[in-house]
Amino acid sequence: MGLDVRIAVTRTVDGERLVADRGDGEFLLTPVSDLGAALANGTVADLGALGGRSVDIADLSLAPVVGTSGKVICVGHNFTQHILEMGHGLPEYPNVFSKFREALVGANDAIELDPVSSAWDWEAELVMVIGRPARRVSEETALDYVAGYTVANDISARDWQRRGSQWLLGKTFQSTTPIGPWMVTADEVDPADGLSLSCMVDGIEKQNSTTADLLFGPGFLVSYLSHVLTLNPGDIVLTGTPAGVGAGREPAEYLKPGQTVVTEIEGIGRLVNSCAAPSFAA
Amino acid sequence: MGLDVRIAVTRTVDGERLVADRGDGEFLLTPVSDLGAALANGTVADLGALGGRSVDIADLSLAPVVGTSGKVICVGHNFTQHILEMGHGLPEYPNVFSKFREALVGANDAIELDPVSSAWDWEAELVMVIGRPARRVSEETALDYVAGYTVANDISARDWQRRGSQWLLGKTFQSTTPIGPWMVTADEVDPADGLSLSCMVDGIEKQNSTTADLLFGPGFLVSYLSHVLTLNPGDIVLTGTPAGVGAGREPAEYLKPGQTVVTEIEGIGRLVNSCAAPSFAA
Repeated sequence: MGLDVRIAVTRTVDGERLVADRGDGEFLLTPVSDLGAALANGTVADLGALGGRSVDIADLSLAPVVGTSGKVICVGHNFTQHILEMGHGLPEYPNVFSKFREALVGANDAIELDPVSSAWDWEAELVMVIGRPARRVSEETALDYVAGYTVANDISARDWQRRGSQWLLGKTFQSTTPIGPWMVTADEVDPADGLSLSCMVDGIEKQNSTTADLLFGPGFLVSYLSHVLTLNPGDIVLTGTPAGVGAGREPAEYLKPGQTVVTEIEGIGRLVNSCAAPSFAA
Repeated sequence: MGLDVRIAVTRTVDGERLVADRGDGEFLLTPVSDLGAALANGTVADLGALGGRSVDIADLSLAPVVGTSGKVICVGHNFTQHILEMGHGLPEYPNVFSKFREALVGANDAIELDPVSSAWDWEAELVMVIGRPARRVSEETALDYVAGYTVANDISARDWQRRGSQWLLGKTFQSTTPIGPWMVTADEVDPADGLSLSCMVDGIEKQNSTTADLLFGPGFLVSYLSHVLTLNPGDIVLTGTPAGVGAGREPAEYLKPGQTVVTEIEGIGRLVNSCAAPSFAA
């Protein structure tokens, strides 16, 4: 895609706006409101040059890096050691589920731990952001449809995830999944190079792996999913988590309000999120 | 909600528009484009009186009855006989998954049977359309948040559904799930009364049950889901299918291009969909 710019989504009094980091230390608040539309019409390529008001990144409230109507597709069981710690065999196909947009929060927002679950767990993940409509594309050309990469933590309520065979509800509690801070364009980073991927809770490292250890890599996943349905600009794909989740520990460890989760991928970005009880439970 | 009007969504050269049936034989093509927005701002209550151009319902191309940004939430294992035919025990909680919007088609559109699956199956279902934002609502008040009901067929690629533990991909192939033709307002029909629910394939009845046999009824489901995340106007909930699916038969029966699927719920509406190979496979 050759964009050479980092893009964040920020909340303003007039709604969401894209922020472009041109790499020269200046952050531009652009008039563009939707990442999906900007990717679809090619505006993202011009964001660095488009201009806009210069802002201090520290003043911004970052929103999830996803198009306003973007799908949130998730892949489970995609690192060998995590599959083994969860007690499963190696899969022949990607195990795919989803989240709803209501689950997402920004890179520095609170993760809301609803007390209706007593098993809140962490899952650091690499995220692909789709840049062009992809339908029935080959694995060889699939990365042409990826605009860039960002970081998420697929925070999961393990007890709810296991109430039935389907994980959705344990994965889509309101305001639980931080994603961001930036979409780094695909010409800047290549997950196949083995980017360090980690999760720390209150300063203690819980997960540490590399993006080279994905069983099903970005190109395979985009091609595979595109044979089921169209992937659209602004859609995101969470690609799965490595070993070290709380449910895989002996004894199991779960998140509590007051803790801080730091999720980071080398060359892409870092999420810093505190855990809080939702206001209705305070 | 007391709306007393049937609402369809139709495709026009200017995009989607709502159609109101006032019950006097006249169908009005309104200027309103989004079911979710119309429900959110109360416009639906006025659609019958709002006016609009009178149209012949037979001329319309019906689109899926869902808000343009609406979630598609699905419940599995919600009729006792279907649970048994699929080889499962009775659940303690609803088993919840989702579809993406790309899977939906209108009441008379073709169901596209991608030849990548050889196990296309039918699942007639009652659908709730959410009318008001619902977050942590009680079961007793939950039906106040339901604007009305419609009909869907949760067409499923059984082989893909079972490739991993998560059903999503087998449930969300592009252009496979017919939904419509109408949202009938909740003051007109009550699923607790036991509305006949059926699916016929090429004129042969495959499923026949009643909406009174749902294990987890509409009120329970809305309350339960609203404790996980906010349900918004225009979101839909597919409530599960009764016994008689193809995978539960001996030998198993699956859909083929050229067949016609008729899905009907008494007092709500009837879907008539032909099965076709997608154009890329023709």
